[in-house]
Amino acid sequence: MTITRREFLYSGAAVFAVGDAPGLRALLFDTFGTVVDYRGTIIDEGRALGRRKNLTVDWEKFADAWRGDYAPSMNRVRTGQLPWTTLDRLNRIILDKLLVDFRISGLTDAEIEDFNHVWHRLKPWPDAVSGLTRLKKKYTISPLSNGNVSLLTDVAKHAGLPWDLIIGADISRHYKPDPEVYLTAARLLELTPQNMMMVAAHQDDLRAARALGFKTAFVKRPKEGPNGEHRPIEPLWDYVVDDFNELAAKLGA
Amino acid sequence: MTITRREFLYSGAAVFAVGDAPGLRALLFDTFGTVVDYRGTIIDEGRALGRRKNLTVDWEKFADAWRGDYAPSMNRVRTGQLPWTTLDRLNRIILDKLLVDFRISGLTDAEIEDFNHVWHRLKPWPDAVSGLTRLKKKYTISPLSNGNVSLLTDVAKHAGLPWDLIIGADISRHYKPDPEVYLTAARLLELTPQNMMMVAAHQDDLRAARALGFKTAFVKRPKEGPNGEHRPIEPLWDYVVDDFNELAAKLGA
Repeated sequence: MTITRREFLYSGAAVFAVGDAPGLRALLFDTFGTVVDYRGTIIDEGRALGRRKNLTVDWEKFADAWRGDYAPSMNRVRTGQLPWTTLDRLNRIILDKLLVDFRISGLTDAEIEDFNHVWHRLKPWPDAVSGLTRLKKKYTISPLSNGNVSLLTDVAKHAGLPWDLIIGADISRHYKPDPEVYLTAARLLELTPQNMMMVAAHQDDLRAARALGFKTAFVKRPKEGPNGEHRPIEPLWDYVVDDFNELAAKLGA
Repeated sequence: MTITRREFLYSGAAVFAVGDAPGLRALLFDTFGTVVDYRGTIIDEGRALGRRKNLTVDWEKFADAWRGDYAPSMNRVRTGQLPWTTLDRLNRIILDKLLVDFRISGLTDAEIEDFNHVWHRLKPWPDAVSGLTRLKKKYTISPLSNGNVSLLTDVAKHAGLPWDLIIGADISRHYKPDPEVYLTAARLLELTPQNMMMVAAHQDDLRAARALGFKTAFVKRPKEGPNGEHRPIEPLWDYVVDDFNELAAKLGA
Protein backbone atom coordinates (compact mmCIF):
# COMPACT_ATOMS: atom_id res chain seq x y z
CA MET A 1 0.00 0.00 0.00
CA THR A 2 1.52 3.30 -1.08
CA ILE A 3 -0.24 6.36 0.21
CA THR A 4 -0.07 9.17 -2.27
CA ARG A 5 -0.32 12.74 -1.12
CA ARG A 6 -3.97 13.08 -2.13
CA GLU A 7 -4.98 9.87 -0.38
CA PHE A 8 -3.05 10.87 2.68
CA LEU A 9 -4.91 14.16 2.94
CA TYR A 10 -8.15 12.28 2.42
CA SER A 11 -7.33 9.98 5.35
CA GLY A 12 -8.20 12.91 7.59
CA ALA A 13 -4.76 13.95 8.72
CA ALA A 14 -4.48 17.72 8.81
CA VAL A 15 -1.55 18.49 6.56
CA PHE A 16 -1.04 22.16 7.08
CA ALA A 17 1.49 24.52 5.56
CA VAL A 18 4.75 22.74 6.37
CA GLY A 19 3.30 19.53 4.93
CA ASP A 20 3.47 21.16 1.53
CA ALA A 21 7.26 21.24 1.56
CA PRO A 22 8.61 18.43 -0.59
CA GLY A 23 11.87 17.80 1.27
CA LEU A 24 12.92 15.76 4.24
CA ARG A 25 11.80 17.37 7.50
CA ALA A 26 11.80 14.73 10.23
CA LEU A 27 13.74 11.59 11.13
CA LEU A 28 12.03 8.88 13.16
CA PHE A 29 14.13 6.35 15.00
CA ASP A 30 13.48 2.83 16.07
CA THR A 31 14.97 2.82 19.55
CA PHE A 32 15.72 -0.61 21.05
CA GLY A 33 18.70 -1.99 19.15
CA THR A 34 18.95 1.02 16.83
CA VAL A 35 19.66 3.84 19.32
CA VAL A 36 20.34 1.93 22.53
CA ASP A 37 22.06 -1.38 23.22
CA TYR A 38 19.43 -3.41 25.06
CA ARG A 39 21.44 -6.63 24.83
CA GLY A 40 24.65 -5.28 26.32
CA THR A 41 22.83 -3.39 29.06
CA ILE A 42 20.72 -6.37 30.12
CA ILE A 43 23.84 -8.56 30.20
CA ASP A 44 25.76 -5.99 32.28
CA GLU A 45 22.94 -5.39 34.73
CA GLY A 46 22.18 -9.13 34.92
CA ARG A 47 25.77 -9.89 35.82
CA ALA A 48 25.77 -7.21 38.50
CA LEU A 49 22.52 -8.57 39.90
CA GLY A 50 23.97 -12.08 39.80
CA ARG A 51 26.99 -11.01 41.83
CA ARG A 52 24.80 -9.26 44.42
CA LYS A 53 22.38 -12.19 44.75
CA ASN A 54 24.76 -15.13 44.14
CA LEU A 55 22.99 -16.25 40.96
CA THR A 56 24.56 -18.50 38.34
CA VAL A 57 22.92 -17.50 35.08
CA ASP A 58 24.08 -17.27 31.46
CA TRP A 59 23.11 -13.62 31.07
CA GLU A 60 23.79 -13.59 27.33
CA LYS A 61 21.23 -16.35 26.86
CA PHE A 62 18.94 -14.53 29.28
CA ALA A 63 19.12 -11.29 27.25
CA ASP A 64 18.49 -13.15 23.99
CA ALA A 65 15.55 -14.99 25.53
CA TRP A 66 14.06 -11.68 26.67
CA ARG A 67 14.35 -10.24 23.19
CA GLY A 68 13.07 -13.52 21.75
CA ASP A 69 9.74 -13.10 23.55
CA TYR A 70 9.56 -9.43 22.66
CA ALA A 71 7.94 -9.56 19.20
CA PRO A 72 5.59 -12.46 20.05
CA SER A 73 4.28 -10.61 23.10
CA MET A 74 3.52 -7.51 21.03
CA ASN A 75 1.90 -9.68 18.40
CA ARG A 76 -0.54 -10.86 21.06
CA VAL A 77 -1.64 -7.23 21.37
CA ARG A 78 -1.59 -6.66 17.60
CA THR A 79 -3.85 -9.63 16.97
CA GLY A 80 -6.29 -8.69 19.74
CA GLN A 81 -5.38 -11.64 21.97
CA LEU A 82 -4.43 -9.09 24.65
CA PRO A 83 -6.02 -5.65 25.12
CA TRP A 84 -3.71 -2.64 24.81
CA THR A 85 -0.74 -3.33 27.08
CA THR A 86 2.37 -1.15 27.34
CA LEU A 87 5.83 -2.51 26.63
CA ASP A 88 6.75 -1.99 30.29
CA ARG A 89 3.98 -4.34 31.29
CA LEU A 90 4.76 -6.86 28.50
CA ASN A 91 8.39 -6.84 29.60
CA ARG A 92 7.36 -7.63 33.15
CA ILE A 93 5.22 -10.55 31.96
CA ILE A 94 8.21 -11.88 29.99
CA LEU A 95 10.57 -11.32 32.91
CA ASP A 96 8.33 -13.23 35.32
CA LYS A 97 8.44 -16.17 32.89
CA LEU A 98 12.21 -15.94 32.42
CA LEU A 99 12.78 -16.00 36.16
CA VAL A 100 11.13 -19.43 36.19
CA ASP A 101 12.85 -20.66 33.00
CA PHE A 102 16.30 -19.63 34.27
CA ARG A 103 15.57 -20.86 37.81
CA ILE A 104 16.21 -17.43 39.37
CA SER A 105 14.75 -17.15 42.85
CA GLY A 106 15.21 -15.10 45.99
CA LEU A 107 14.37 -11.72 44.47
CA THR A 108 11.90 -9.41 46.18
CA ASP A 109 9.15 -7.86 44.07
CA ALA A 110 10.98 -4.51 44.31
CA GLU A 111 14.15 -6.15 42.97
CA ILE A 112 12.24 -7.78 40.12
CA GLU A 113 10.54 -4.49 39.27
CA ASP A 114 13.88 -2.69 39.37
CA PHE A 115 15.39 -5.28 37.04
CA ASN A 116 12.44 -4.83 34.66
CA HIS A 117 13.32 -1.15 34.68
CA VAL A 118 16.67 -1.98 33.08
CA TRP A 119 14.80 -1.03 29.88
CA HIS A 120 14.61 2.53 31.29
CA ARG A 121 18.40 2.59 31.71
CA LEU A 122 19.57 1.23 28.35
CA LYS A 123 22.95 2.53 27.19
CA PRO A 124 23.20 4.36 23.89
CA TRP A 125 25.41 3.07 21.09
CA PRO A 126 28.65 5.12 21.11
CA ASP A 127 27.64 7.24 18.09
CA ALA A 128 24.02 7.84 19.14
CA VAL A 129 24.23 11.09 21.11
CA SER A 130 26.75 12.80 18.81
CA GLY A 131 24.93 11.69 15.65
CA LEU A 132 21.50 12.72 16.94
CA THR A 133 22.89 16.09 18.06
CA ARG A 134 24.11 16.74 14.49
CA LEU A 135 20.88 15.54 12.87
CA LYS A 136 18.74 17.64 15.25
CA LYS A 137 20.25 20.85 13.86
CA LYS A 138 18.75 20.17 10.44
CA TYR A 139 15.75 17.93 11.15
CA THR A 140 13.10 17.23 13.73
CA ILE A 141 14.13 14.00 15.47
CA SER A 142 11.92 11.65 17.45
CA PRO A 143 11.84 8.03 18.50
CA LEU A 144 9.11 6.03 16.79
CA SER A 145 9.29 3.06 19.06
CA ASN A 146 7.21 0.29 20.51
CA GLY A 147 8.17 1.64 23.90
CA ASN A 148 5.64 3.64 25.89
CA VAL A 149 6.17 7.39 26.34
CA SER A 150 7.29 7.20 29.97
CA LEU A 151 9.77 4.44 29.18
CA LEU A 152 11.21 6.35 26.22
CA THR A 153 11.39 9.54 28.29
CA ASP A 154 13.39 7.75 30.97
CA VAL A 155 15.69 6.19 28.36
CA ALA A 156 16.31 9.62 26.83
CA LYS A 157 17.02 11.30 30.17
CA HIS A 158 19.31 8.47 31.23
CA ALA A 159 21.23 8.24 27.95
CA GLY A 160 21.20 11.97 27.14
CA LEU A 161 19.33 11.54 23.86
CA PRO A 162 18.42 15.01 22.53
CA TRP A 163 14.99 14.20 21.03
CA ASP A 164 12.77 17.07 19.93
CA LEU A 165 9.72 15.11 21.02
CA ILE A 166 8.80 11.57 21.99
CA ILE A 167 6.33 9.43 20.07
CA GLY A 168 5.59 6.24 21.99
CA ALA A 169 3.32 3.36 21.10
CA ASP A 170 0.80 4.38 23.76
CA ILE A 171 -0.11 7.45 21.71
CA SER A 172 -1.44 5.36 18.80
CA ARG A 173 -2.04 2.26 20.95
CA HIS A 174 -0.57 0.19 18.14
CA TYR A 175 2.68 -1.70 17.75
CA LYS A 176 4.93 -1.68 14.72
CA PRO A 177 4.64 -2.70 11.98
CA ASP A 178 0.97 -1.61 12.18
CA PRO A 179 0.54 1.34 9.77
CA GLU A 180 -1.23 3.34 12.50
CA VAL A 181 2.12 3.79 14.27
CA TYR A 182 3.76 5.50 11.31
CA LEU A 183 0.67 7.50 10.35
CA THR A 184 0.36 8.79 13.93
CA ALA A 185 3.81 10.35 13.51
CA ALA A 186 2.65 11.96 10.26
CA ARG A 187 -0.47 13.31 11.94
CA LEU A 188 1.35 14.70 14.98
CA LEU A 189 4.11 16.31 12.93
CA GLU A 190 1.67 17.40 10.20
CA LEU A 191 3.95 16.01 7.54
CA THR A 192 3.36 13.66 4.67
CA PRO A 193 5.25 10.34 4.73
CA GLN A 194 7.47 11.73 1.95
CA ASN A 195 8.73 14.39 4.41
CA MET A 196 9.89 11.75 6.89
CA MET A 197 12.56 9.09 7.14
CA MET A 198 12.41 5.96 9.26
CA VAL A 199 15.80 4.99 10.69
CA ALA A 200 16.14 1.45 11.99
CA ALA A 201 18.39 -1.57 12.34
CA HIS A 202 15.39 -3.78 11.58
CA GLN A 203 14.26 -4.33 8.03
CA ASP A 204 10.66 -5.26 8.88
CA ASP A 205 10.29 -1.81 10.44
CA LEU A 206 11.70 -0.13 7.33
CA ARG A 207 9.57 -2.27 5.04
CA ALA A 208 6.38 -1.12 6.78
CA ALA A 209 7.45 2.54 6.70
CA ARG A 210 8.49 2.35 3.06
CA ALA A 211 5.15 0.85 2.06
CA LEU A 212 3.50 4.04 3.36
CA GLY A 213 5.86 6.33 1.46
CA PHE A 214 8.47 7.08 4.15
CA LYS A 215 12.11 7.41 3.22
CA THR A 216 14.30 4.80 4.89
CA ALA A 217 17.75 4.43 6.42
CA PHE A 218 19.13 1.09 7.56
CA VAL A 219 21.71 1.30 10.34
CA LYS A 220 23.99 -1.70 10.80
CA ARG A 221 24.11 -2.72 14.44
CA PRO A 222 26.01 -6.02 14.30
CA LYS A 223 26.38 -6.17 18.09
CA GLU A 224 22.64 -6.06 18.59
CA GLY A 225 22.12 -9.78 18.16
CA PRO A 226 23.89 -12.83 19.53
CA ASN A 227 25.70 -13.83 16.33
CA GLY A 228 27.19 -10.51 15.29
CA GLU A 229 25.59 -10.59 11.87
CA HIS A 230 22.58 -9.22 10.09
CA ARG A 231 20.47 -11.05 7.60
CA PRO A 232 21.26 -9.96 4.01
CA ILE A 233 20.49 -6.27 3.57
CA GLU A 234 17.67 -5.81 1.09
CA PRO A 235 18.38 -3.37 -1.76
CA LEU A 236 15.33 -1.27 -0.86
CA TRP A 237 16.60 1.39 1.52
CA ASP A 238 17.47 4.98 0.63
CA TYR A 239 20.52 4.85 2.90
CA VAL A 240 22.56 2.06 4.47
CA VAL A 241 24.98 3.34 7.11
CA ASP A 242 27.28 2.07 9.83
CA ASP A 243 26.18 4.66 12.40
CA PHE A 244 24.33 7.93 12.99
CA ASN A 245 27.33 10.13 12.21
CA GLU A 246 27.59 8.56 8.77
CA LEU A 247 23.88 9.22 8.29
CA ALA A 248 24.38 12.87 9.35
CA ALA A 249 27.23 13.24 6.86
CA LYS A 250 25.18 11.70 4.05
CA LEU A 251 22.24 14.00 4.81
CA GLY A 252 24.47 17.08 4.99
CA ALA A 253 23.70 17.63 8.68
CA MET B 1 -13.47 16.91 41.93
CA THR B 2 -10.34 15.55 43.56
CA ILE B 3 -9.09 12.27 42.19
CA THR B 4 -7.64 10.09 44.90
CA ARG B 5 -5.06 7.51 44.05
CA ARG B 6 -7.54 4.65 44.10
CA GLU B 7 -10.01 6.45 41.85
CA PHE B 8 -7.24 7.45 39.52
CA LEU B 9 -6.16 3.86 39.08
CA TYR B 10 -9.77 2.92 38.51
CA SER B 11 -10.02 5.45 35.69
CA GLY B 12 -7.98 3.02 33.60
CA ALA B 13 -4.64 4.79 33.59
CA ALA B 14 -1.80 2.33 34.01
CA VAL B 15 0.10 3.58 37.03
CA PHE B 16 3.15 1.40 37.04
CA ALA B 17 6.04 1.35 39.47
CA VAL B 18 7.20 4.96 39.35
CA GLY B 19 3.60 6.07 39.95
CA ASP B 20 3.93 4.70 43.45
CA ALA B 21 6.53 7.29 44.41
CA PRO B 22 4.95 9.99 46.52
CA GLY B 23 7.17 12.90 45.48
CA LEU B 24 7.19 15.38 42.66
CA ARG B 25 8.41 13.81 39.41
CA ALA B 26 7.24 15.96 36.51
CA LEU B 27 6.56 19.62 35.79
CA LEU B 28 4.03 20.53 33.11
CA PHE B 29 4.09 23.99 31.61
CA ASP B 30 1.45 26.11 30.03
CA THR B 31 3.31 27.55 27.06
CA PHE B 32 1.77 30.64 25.44
CA GLY B 33 2.28 33.50 27.88
CA THR B 34 3.98 31.31 30.48
CA VAL B 35 7.07 30.12 28.58
CA VAL B 36 6.99 32.29 25.47
CA ASP B 37 5.95 35.88 24.89
CA TYR B 38 3.26 35.68 22.23
CA ARG B 39 2.24 39.33 22.64
CA GLY B 40 5.71 40.82 22.17
CA THR B 41 6.53 38.50 19.27
CA ILE B 42 3.30 39.22 17.39
CA ILE B 43 3.83 42.98 17.88
CA ASP B 44 7.45 42.77 16.65
CA GLU B 45 6.64 40.63 13.62
CA GLY B 46 3.53 42.72 12.87
CA ARG B 47 5.58 45.91 12.84
CA ALA B 48 8.17 44.31 10.54
CA LEU B 49 5.41 43.12 8.21
CA GLY B 50 3.85 46.60 8.34
CA ARG B 51 7.11 48.20 7.25
CA ARG B 52 7.57 45.73 4.39
CA LYS B 53 3.97 46.12 3.14
CA ASN B 54 3.30 49.77 4.03
CA LEU B 55 0.55 48.93 6.52
CA THR B 56 -0.68 51.33 9.20
CA VAL B 57 -1.87 49.09 12.02
CA ASP B 58 -1.89 49.37 15.83
CA TRP B 59 -0.04 46.09 16.34
CA GLU B 60 -0.52 46.13 20.11
CA LYS B 61 -4.27 46.19 19.60
CA PHE B 62 -3.88 43.57 16.89
CA ALA B 63 -1.97 41.21 19.23
CA ASP B 64 -4.53 41.71 22.01
CA ALA B 65 -7.40 41.08 19.58
CA TRP B 66 -5.73 37.85 18.44
CA ARG B 67 -5.42 36.66 22.02
CA GLY B 68 -8.96 37.91 22.71
CA ASP B 69 -10.40 35.45 20.17
CA TYR B 70 -8.14 32.64 21.37
CA ALA B 71 -10.19 31.22 24.26
CA PRO B 72 -13.57 31.68 22.54
CA SER B 73 -12.35 29.79 19.45
CA MET B 74 -11.18 26.86 21.60
CA ASN B 75 -14.47 26.95 23.47
CA ARG B 76 -16.24 26.34 20.15
CA VAL B 77 -14.29 23.06 19.98
CA ARG B 78 -14.81 22.28 23.67
CA THR B 79 -18.60 22.68 23.35
CA GLY B 80 -18.82 20.61 20.17
CA GLN B 81 -19.72 23.56 17.93
CA LEU B 82 -16.60 22.74 15.89
CA PRO B 83 -15.10 19.26 15.41
CA TRP B 84 -11.54 18.75 16.63
CA THR B 85 -9.49 21.59 15.14
CA THR B 86 -5.83 22.30 15.91
CA LEU B 87 -4.69 25.61 17.34
CA ASP B 88 -2.78 26.32 14.11
CA ARG B 89 -6.03 26.11 12.19
CA LEU B 90 -8.00 28.09 14.81
CA ASN B 91 -5.31 30.78 14.68
CA ARG B 92 -5.65 31.00 10.91
CA ILE B 93 -9.42 31.39 11.21
CA ILE B 94 -8.89 34.22 13.73
CA LEU B 95 -6.19 35.81 11.59
CA ASP B 96 -8.41 35.84 8.51
CA LYS B 97 -11.04 37.70 10.55
CA LEU B 98 -8.50 40.15 12.01
CA LEU B 99 -7.21 41.01 8.54
CA VAL B 100 -10.73 42.25 7.73
CA ASP B 101 -11.28 43.99 11.11
CA PHE B 102 -7.96 45.83 10.89
CA ARG B 103 -8.41 46.57 7.15
CA ILE B 104 -5.18 44.80 6.18
CA SER B 105 -5.05 43.94 2.49
CA GLY B 106 -2.50 43.20 -0.21
CA LEU B 107 -1.03 40.06 1.41
CA THR B 108 -0.59 36.89 -0.62
CA ASP B 109 -1.84 33.64 0.86
CA ALA B 110 1.78 32.60 1.46
CA GLU B 111 2.38 35.85 3.38
CA ILE B 112 -0.75 35.31 5.48
CA GLU B 113 0.25 31.73 6.19
CA ASP B 114 3.74 32.84 7.14
CA PHE B 115 2.31 35.46 9.50
CA ASN B 116 0.08 32.80 11.08
CA HIS B 117 3.27 30.85 11.67
CA VAL B 118 4.48 33.63 13.99
CA TRP B 119 3.11 31.29 16.67
CA HIS B 120 5.85 28.79 15.66
CA ARG B 121 8.52 31.48 16.23
CA LEU B 122 7.47 32.89 19.61
CA LYS B 123 10.32 34.24 21.73
CA PRO B 124 10.94 32.75 25.16
CA TRP B 125 10.77 34.92 28.26
CA PRO B 126 14.37 35.77 29.31
CA ASP B 127 14.42 33.24 32.17
CA ALA B 128 12.72 30.39 30.30
CA VAL B 129 15.66 28.48 28.80
CA SER B 130 17.95 28.81 31.85
CA GLY B 131 15.15 27.96 34.30
CA LEU B 132 13.95 24.94 32.31
CA THR B 133 17.52 23.70 31.94
CA ARG B 134 17.88 23.72 35.74
CA LEU B 135 14.50 22.10 36.35
CA LYS B 136 15.17 19.38 33.75
CA LYS B 137 18.07 18.05 35.81
CA LYS B 138 15.74 17.10 38.65
CA TYR B 139 12.36 16.62 36.95
CA THR B 140 10.76 15.51 33.72
CA ILE B 141 9.61 18.69 31.97
CA SER B 142 6.99 18.99 29.26
CA PRO B 143 4.66 21.59 27.83
CA LEU B 144 1.00 20.88 28.56
CA SER B 145 -0.40 23.33 26.11
CA ASN B 146 -3.36 23.94 23.87
CA GLY B 147 -0.90 24.05 21.00
CA ASN B 148 -0.67 21.08 18.67
CA VAL B 149 2.45 18.88 18.78
CA SER B 150 3.99 20.19 15.54
CA LEU B 151 3.47 23.80 16.64
CA LEU B 152 5.01 23.16 20.07
CA THR B 153 7.91 21.27 18.46
CA ASP B 154 8.66 24.23 16.20
CA VAL B 155 8.41 26.66 19.13
CA ALA B 156 10.85 24.53 21.13
CA LYS B 157 13.36 24.23 18.28
CA HIS B 158 13.15 27.95 17.54
CA ALA B 159 13.42 29.09 21.16
CA GLY B 160 15.82 26.36 22.32
CA LEU B 161 13.45 24.99 24.97
CA PRO B 162 14.96 21.79 26.41
CA TRP B 163 11.74 19.76 26.86
CA ASP B 164 12.02 16.07 27.68
CA LEU B 165 8.88 15.40 25.65
CA ILE B 166 6.03 17.36 24.08
CA ILE B 167 2.40 16.89 25.07
CA GLY B 168 0.16 18.80 22.69
CA ALA B 169 -3.60 19.12 22.64
CA ASP B 170 -3.88 16.92 19.55
CA ILE B 171 -2.83 13.90 21.63
CA SER B 172 -5.91 14.11 23.86
CA ARG B 173 -7.97 16.08 21.31
CA HIS B 174 -9.16 18.26 24.16
CA TYR B 175 -8.46 21.84 25.15
CA LYS B 176 -7.71 23.07 28.65
CA PRO B 177 -9.34 23.30 31.09
CA ASP B 178 -10.94 19.95 30.08
CA PRO B 179 -9.75 17.33 32.61
CA GLU B 180 -8.82 14.98 29.74
CA VAL B 181 -5.84 17.21 28.94
CA TYR B 182 -4.30 16.86 32.40
CA LEU B 183 -5.17 13.17 32.74
CA THR B 184 -3.55 12.44 29.37
CA ALA B 185 -0.28 13.74 30.81
CA ALA B 186 -0.74 11.45 33.81
CA ARG B 187 -1.43 8.48 31.55
CA LEU B 188 1.54 9.12 29.24
CA LEU B 189 3.98 9.72 32.10
CA GLU B 190 2.44 6.93 34.21
CA LEU B 191 2.30 9.21 37.21
CA THR B 192 -0.50 10.13 39.56
CA PRO B 193 -1.55 13.80 39.62
CA GLN B 194 0.18 14.09 43.01
CA ASN B 195 3.51 13.38 41.27
CA MET B 196 3.03 16.32 38.89
CA MET B 197 2.99 20.10 39.05
CA MET B 198 1.21 22.42 36.62
CA VAL B 199 3.14 25.64 36.02
CA ALA B 200 1.20 28.51 34.47
CA ALA B 201 0.65 32.25 34.38
CA HIS B 202 -3.10 31.60 34.12
CA GLN B 203 -5.13 30.79 37.19
CA ASP B 204 -7.95 29.00 35.34
CA ASP B 205 -5.37 26.50 34.11
CA LEU B 206 -4.03 25.98 37.65
CA ARG B 207 -7.55 25.71 39.07
CA ALA B 208 -8.38 22.84 36.71
CA ALA B 209 -5.12 21.04 37.44
CA ARG B 210 -5.50 21.50 41.21
CA ALA B 211 -9.03 20.08 41.13
CA LEU B 212 -7.52 16.83 39.81
CA GLY B 213 -4.83 16.68 42.49
CA PHE B 214 -1.90 18.29 40.66
CA LYS B 215 0.50 20.52 42.52
CA THR B 216 0.52 24.08 41.18
CA ALA B 217 2.94 26.95 40.56
CA PHE B 218 1.78 30.38 39.47
CA VAL B 219 4.34 32.37 37.47
CA LYS B 220 3.84 36.12 37.28
CA ARG B 221 4.14 37.32 33.72
CA PRO B 222 3.03 40.94 33.98
CA LYS B 223 4.11 41.74 30.41
CA GLU B 224 1.84 39.07 28.98
CA GLY B 225 -1.24 41.25 28.88
CA PRO B 226 -1.89 44.78 27.68
CA ASN B 227 -2.18 46.42 31.10
CA GLY B 228 0.86 45.03 32.88
CA GLU B 229 -1.15 43.61 35.75
CA HIS B 230 -2.59 40.33 36.82
CA ARG B 231 -5.92 39.84 38.47
CA PRO B 232 -5.54 39.21 42.23
CA ILE B 233 -3.55 36.05 42.85
CA GLU B 234 -5.71 33.46 44.56
CA PRO B 235 -4.25 31.94 47.75
CA LEU B 236 -4.53 28.42 46.32
CA TRP B 237 -1.20 27.73 44.64
CA ASP B 238 1.66 25.73 46.11
CA TYR B 239 4.16 28.24 44.71
CA VAL B 240 3.94 31.79 43.41
CA VAL B 241 7.12 32.91 41.64
CA ASP B 242 8.45 35.70 39.47
CA ASP B 243 10.19 33.41 37.00
CA PHE B 244 11.43 29.86 36.31
CA ASN B 245 14.76 30.35 38.05
CA GLU B 246 12.96 31.27 41.25
CA LEU B 247 10.85 28.13 40.83
CA ALA B 248 14.02 26.06 40.33
CA ALA B 249 15.53 27.53 43.50
CA LYS B 250 12.37 26.85 45.52
CA LEU B 251 12.26 23.25 44.27
CA GLY B 252 15.94 22.68 44.99
CA ALA B 253 16.77 22.15 41.31
